[in-house]
Amino acid sequence: MNRKIILASKSPRRFELMKMAGFEFTVDSKNVEENHPKGMAPQLIPASLATKKAKAFLGELDDDTVVIGADTIVILDGVIYEKPNDREHAIEMLAALSGKMHEVVTGVCILSNKKEVVFSETTKVYFNPFTRAEIEYYVDNYKPFDKAGSYACQEWIGAIGIKKFDGDYFNVVGLPINRVYHEMKNF
Amino acid sequence: MNRKIILASKSPRRFELMKMAGFEFTVDSKNVEENHPKGMAPQLIPASLATKKAKAFLGELDDDTVVIGADTIVILDGVIYEKPNDREHAIEMLAALSGKMHEVVTGVCILSNKKEVVFSETTKVYFNPFTRAEIEYYVDNYKPFDKAGSYACQEWIGAIGIKKFDGDYFNVVGLPINRVYHEMKNF
Repeated sequence: MNRKIILASKSPRRFELMKMAGFEFTVDSKNVEENHPKGMAPQLIPASLATKKAKAFLGELDDDTVVIGADTIVILDGVIYEKPNDREHAIEMLAALSGKMHEVVTGVCILSNKKEVVFSETTKVYFNPFTRAEIEYYVDNYKPFDKAGSYACQEWIGAIGIKKFDGDYFNVVGLPINRVYHEMKNF
Repeated sequence: MNRKIILASKSPRRFELMKMAGFEFTVDSKNVEENHPKGMAPQLIPASLATKKAKAFLGELDDDTVVIGADTIVILDGVIYEKPNDREHAIEMLAALSGKMHEVVTGVCILSNKKEVVFSETTKVYFNPFTRAEIEYYVDNYKPFDKAGSYACQEWIGAIGIKKFDGDYFNVVGLPINRVYHEMKNF
């Protein structure tokens, strides 16, 4: 295949997943305002932001280039959890997620000059109850400030805190790589 | 805590999971015959082998040492898949798993001179259908000969081939680390 792939994401985790699936690609991203229409259903927001991130490249793409944009959020009881603002905010989020099931939704937009595919994937994650000491230990040692929901499942908190996944594990890491692979095959 | 932990497994994946959960431990293992009573239900076999691996240390343990033994198998339609014998056997296994749900069962035995805890954890894994070319590409490039079921979910085949996990993802990697962590807390 002669097509070139741009991963429009700064996330080192998405980079690793793309590598794992055997893609050759470059990484580049534009600053876009991460906002969304008021009243949009939480489930639809990641796909909307992923599309924004990919569409920021329109106008400068060769015909053989494909851009992949992605965005991940955590939803608990209908409330959206994105990246935390600071230490206290991260602790608050993890205290809210403690002992409960939440959903991780990653939206993906695959875009070229000729075509656009947008989808999102949801994985249910079941957390154990955490003590305040466990939450502070995690936040202070792992500093999850660039992570939706203030955690990364492949870190300490994932090992000791996640009882069960229902869905694509890699979607929780940051990209539904299985779906991306198959969509790219047909793109 | 003054106790010493021995991980009785040569698996580099179990080593990584124990590290991820923050354990300090050493690795040591004895050769045990990996057989089990005839007619034993597949679900019970990993716990039985894990116990064998841990009990091989009895008689040489200090009172403050804990041994962790583990064993993982794949079960498809009631049939057990362990490590493949060779390339052809690995290809055959993956062809059987293709397009189906299988169960990954890891048995764990935590043992000291005073106490023994044995449990097993099951995760359901849903595979996409694979082409013969995909299977051969994987086997020839990743050589999954030391892996139950002839695959590792954290490799290429996991990215492109697994639709869904139902249960503990890390159990499929090789150790139900969440359960191990909580059992060790109370051990």
